[in-house]
Amino acid sequence: MITKQQVLEFLKDYDPENITIATVCSHSSLQIFDGARKEGFRTLGICADKPPKFYDAFPRAKPDEYLIVESYTDIMNRAEELRKKNIIIIPHSSFIYYLGKENFSGMAVPTFGNRAAIEWESDRDKESKWFLGAGIHMPGKIDDPHDIKGPVMVEYEGAKGGKGFFVARSYKEFNELVDRTRKYAVQEFINGTRYDLHYFYSPIRNEGYTLSKGSLELLSMDRRVESNADEIFRLGSPGELIEAGICPTYVLTGNVPLVARESLLSRIFSLGEQVVEESLALFGGITGAFCIEAVITDSLEIKVFELSSRIVSGTNFYISGSPYSDLMQKDLSTGRRIAIEIKEAARTNQLDKILS
Amino acid sequence: MITKQQVLEFLKDYDPENITIATVCSHSSLQIFDGARKEGFRTLGICADKPPKFYDAFPRAKPDEYLIVESYTDIMNRAEELRKKNIIIIPHSSFIYYLGKENFSGMAVPTFGNRAAIEWESDRDKESKWFLGAGIHMPGKIDDPHDIKGPVMVEYEGAKGGKGFFVARSYKEFNELVDRTRKYAVQEFINGTRYDLHYFYSPIRNEGYTLSKGSLELLSMDRRVESNADEIFRLGSPGELIEAGICPTYVLTGNVPLVARESLLSRIFSLGEQVVEESLALFGGITGAFCIEAVITDSLEIKVFELSSRIVSGTNFYISGSPYSDLMQKDLSTGRRIAIEIKEAARTNQLDKILS
Amino acid sequence: MITKQQVLEFLKDYDPENITIATVCSHSSLQIFDGARKEGFRTLGICADKPPKFYDAFPRAKPDEYLIVESYTDIMNRAEELRKKNIIIIPHSSFIYYLGKENFSGMAVPTFGNRAAIEWESDRDKESKWFLGAGIHMPGKIDDPHDIKGPVMVEYEGAKGGKGFFVARSYKEFNELVDRTRKYAVQEFINGTRYDLHYFYSPIRNEGYTLSKGSLELLSMDRRVESNADEIFRLGSPGELIEAGICPTYVLTGNVPLVARESLLSRIFSLGEQVVEESLALFGGITGAFCIEAVITDSLEIKVFELSSRIVSGTNFYISGSPYSDLMQKDLSTGRRIAIEIKEAARTNQLDKILS
Repeated sequence: MITKQQVLEFLKDYDPENITIATVCSHSSLQIFDGARKEGFRTLGICADKPPKFYDAFPRAKPDEYLIVESYTDIMNRAEELRKKNIIIIPHSSFIYYLGKENFSGMAVPTFGNRAAIEWESDRDKESKWFLGAGIHMPGKIDDPHDIKGPVMVEYEGAKGGKGFFVARSYKEFNELVDRTRKYAVQEFINGTRYDLHYFYSPIRNEGYTLSKGSLELLSMDRRVESNADEIFRLGSPGELIEAGICPTYVLTGNVPLVARESLLSRIFSLGEQVVEESLALFGGITGAFCIEAVITDSLEIKVFELSSRIVSGTNFYISGSPYSDLMQKDLSTGRRIAIEIKEAARTNQLDKILS
Repeated sequence: MITKQQVLEFLKDYDPENITIATVCSHSSLQIFDGARKEGFRTLGICADKPPKFYDAFPRAKPDEYLIVESYTDIMNRAEELRKKNIIIIPHSSFIYYLGKENFSGMAVPTFGNRAAIEWESDRDKESKWFLGAGIHMPGKIDDPHDIKGPVMVEYEGAKGGKGFFVARSYKEFNELVDRTRKYAVQEFINGTRYDLHYFYSPIRNEGYTLSKGSLELLSMDRRVESNADEIFRLGSPGELIEAGICPTYVLTGNVPLVARESLLSRIFSLGEQVVEESLALFGGITGAFCIEAVITDSLEIKVFELSSRIVSGTNFYISGSPYSDLMQKDLSTGRRIAIEIKEAARTNQLDKILS
Repeated sequence: MITKQQVLEFLKDYDPENITIATVCSHSSLQIFDGARKEGFRTLGICADKPPKFYDAFPRAKPDEYLIVESYTDIMNRAEELRKKNIIIIPHSSFIYYLGKENFSGMAVPTFGNRAAIEWESDRDKESKWFLGAGIHMPGKIDDPHDIKGPVMVEYEGAKGGKGFFVARSYKEFNELVDRTRKYAVQEFINGTRYDLHYFYSPIRNEGYTLSKGSLELLSMDRRVESNADEIFRLGSPGELIEAGICPTYVLTGNVPLVARESLLSRIFSLGEQVVEESLALFGGITGAFCIEAVITDSLEIKVFELSSRIVSGTNFYISGSPYSDLMQKDLSTGRRIAIEIKEAARTNQLDKILS
C-alpha cells in the first residue's frame, strides 16, 4: 500500500510542465490518450507482448510511446522508470483487473483518483455502508428464501463476469429452479430500464464536505449491452429457456448511448452528490470520474446497483462530446475531462488533491 | 382563451431586437436555452420554489435569469411582468401539464406555436378527424370485444402516464384477462419497431395550404425508453408475468437515438406534409416543432399512434445536431431551430405567423 | 460483364479533375452526396420518375444534378451519357437490387469497389469458401434435423427480406413446428448481441497481400433495428406467439448506434484483415467500405453471419463522424471516406486500383 505521503514525495521530483499520461492499452485507453493529447500531454501506452496493431488505425489516439511489459504485474517493477518519465497513471477497470487489486494499491507511481475508493466499492459491506450513509437504497437482499415475496435475481457464489444468474418470479419458482448444492445470494429483482450515469467530481473546484456549485458534473450516460440477456427473448422466455437448459448471462459487450428525461436530472445530481459527500466523510472522497449503475422504474425511482469509482467503458461512445458535456464545453469526453483536471491541478499546484 | 388579436396587440409593445426566450426549467429546457443563446437571445427560466441546482453544471444552458413562482399556475399572474421583458414562451409538454391546458390557452404572453393545436391533439375525436383528413390510419379501435381477431392492446380508463395496460393475443385471452368491473378501450396491437419522428414546419418559409419546398424539415428521430416494458422480458413473457400479477407499463424514462432506412424518408415526409396541410385547413396549422409517434411494421408501413404539436424530449439527445439536421446546418438542435425561426420572423416582421 | 480492361479504357477519356460522384437516391445516398461534396466533387442523383422531394429539406446532401430514368434498368442505356460526365458510381445495396446483379456486373460505367465481390458474397458456397479461407467460422448448418442438439434458426426457402423464419430450442420443438411441405435450411442459433461492423479497406494505402499499417480502418458500428423481432416480446414469447400463429420477422427498418468493448477491437480488426487478405487471394480484393454482420456471445466470441462488400445503411447515423472515425479525422462518414479515397486515387493516378 502506497501512502499519500509517498506519492507526495514522488511528485517533488516531477516536472509539472512535462507530465505524461499513461494507461494500459484497453478498456477506454483510446479515449484517455485522445483526451490527453487534446490537452497537450504526452501519452504512454502500457501493453503486454506488443502494441495492439489496431492503434495504427486511430492516429489521434495512438500513444506517443509504449511501455512493453512481459506481464501486467511487471508494471510493479517499472515504477521508478515510469516516475522518471513524469508519468501519471489513469486507471481503468481492466488496468486494475490485470494488475490485481493488491498490486494496484501498492504501485509506486502517482495515480489519478483516490486509490482508497477501490476497497469501498469492491467490498459489499463497505459499499452498503457507503450507500446507506448517502441515503441510497440498493435492491434488498433476501437472506431466507422463504421471505421471497416477488421477483428475485439469484446469483451463485463464484460465478464470474456476468454468468451464474437466474431469475425467479416467486418463492415457488425459486424453489423449483435453485441448485441447492451451490451457495447463492438472493436479491430483489428491479423491473425498469437500465442507465449507467457518468459523473465527474472535481476536488479542485470544491471546498469542504458539501459540494460547491459546479464541482459535480454529469458528462454522459449509456446503456450496457449485455450478452446474452439483451436479445435472449428471441430464443425464448425465461420459462421456456429453463426447460431448454439455457440461462441468461450479463456479459458486457458494448454500450448504447442515450439520454434520460430532463425531470430526472435533479435526482440524478442529488444521487451523485450524496455519493461524493459520503465518500469525503468515509475515505477522503472519490476523485474524478465515477459511474452509478442504476435502473429507473416506472415510478421514476432511481435504484442503484453498483458504483465504479473511475472512468467506465460506457463513456467510449462520447469521444467528441455528449448531449450533456456539450453544455459545458465542446468536444469534451470523460478522458479529456480527466486531462483538464490534471492540467489545472498542475498549473495551480494542487496535484496532491487529485492523485494518490 | 387568448385570441390571436390580443397577442398581436401585446406584440406592438415588444422590442423585436430584445426578445427573451422563456420556458419552464424541465423537459427540454436545457436544449431550448442552449439553442436560444446560440442565436443571440437572452433566456429566462421559470421554476417553482428555486432554480434547479444542476443548471450550474451546464453553463452553456443555464438561463440568464430566473422567474421564481410559488406554483406554476402563478405564471398566469405574472403575464404583464413577462411581457414587459419582451418574453416569448416556448411551451413543452411539462410546461402545459404543470400549468393546465385551460390556463395555457389563456396565458397572456406571446407563445411560440399555435395554441389551438393542443385541443386538436388531446381530444381523441378531433385527432381522429385530423388524421383521417390527412389520410393517416391509426391503429383500429375495437368497440365490441367479440370482434377481436388478432393481438390487441387494452387500456383501462383513468389509467395515467403509461400505466394500466395489458396485451392479449386473442379474444379468448382478452376474456380471461380483462377486469370487467373497470372501463376499458381496446385497440389493435401493431407489431413492429417504434420511431418518434421530429419534424419542424416553418410558416415563414411556406405560402398557402400546400407545402412549399423546404418548409417541412425532419430534424431527428428517437426511440422512447419505456419502463418497464422495454426490459420486462428479462423477468418473464407476457403470459408468465400475468401469472405473477405483473403488468407491463410504458412510462418514459429517456430516449435512444437512431436513424430510419433512407427508403422510408419519402413516406416519412409525406406523412408530415399531410399532417401539416390538414392542420392548416382545420385550425390555422401546427407551427414549428412537432412529433409523430409511429411504429414501422415488417411490411415497412408507418403506423401512427400519436402526435405532439411541440418540441418533444426525444430531441434532447441531439443538442449539437443529428444525422438529419447536420444535412441542413451544423450544430442544429430543435431548440436552436425554434430560436432561428423566431429570429427570422422578428427580423422580417412576421412574428404574427409563428406566435399565438 | 464489364472487364477491368474496359473500365481502364473508359478512364482514359476521363478528366480526373472533374469527376462527378453518382448513385441512386436511396439507402445511403444522403451520406454519399454529403461526403462527396465535402471533398469537392460534383454529385449526380439517379432516380426513377422524379427527384425525391425530401432532398429539398437536406440542402447539404441534395445532388447538384439529377438523372431521371424511367426504370432503374434504364441506367444500362445511359452509360455513355454518364461516362461523358466523368461519372464514378458509388453502388449501395438498393442500387444493385434495383438494377439487378447481372446488369450491375455489365454496367459500362466506372464503379467504386470491386464488382467481382458481389458474386462471392451472394453465393452461399463461395462465401463459405471465402470465410473458411479467412479462418472464420459461421453458424453451423445442420443438414439432417435429427442432428439438432441445441437452439436453431430455421429459414424456409424462397422467404424474402427477413420473413419466413422460425426459432426452435430442440429437435422436438423443431419437429412440432416445421412445415414439411416447404423446403427449409436449419442453422445453429447464436445467442448473443448483434453488431454490424463498418470497415474500410484502402488499396492505395496497401502493398501486397498482407495488410500494411493503417490500410484497414474501422469507421463505425451499429445495431440493426429489425421489425418485428426487436419488440415482439411485448406481445409474447416465441412459444406464446406460435400458438397465436405469429412469426418473428427480421426486416430492417433502421439502425441504432453503439460501441463495442475496447478489448474486442483487436479481434474485430483481425477479422477484417482476414476477410480482406483472403479476398485479395480469391478475387482481387474487396475495395473500400465493407461490413461484417456479427453476434458477440457471452464468451466474447465474434460469430460472423454475413458480409456486405460495400457501404451499408448502418453508417447513416454517422454522417458527421463516429466514436471511431473521430480518432482518424473529424467529420468523417463512410461516404466521405469513399470520396477521400477517390480524390487521393485521382490525384496519384491510381484510379485503376479502386474502380471496376
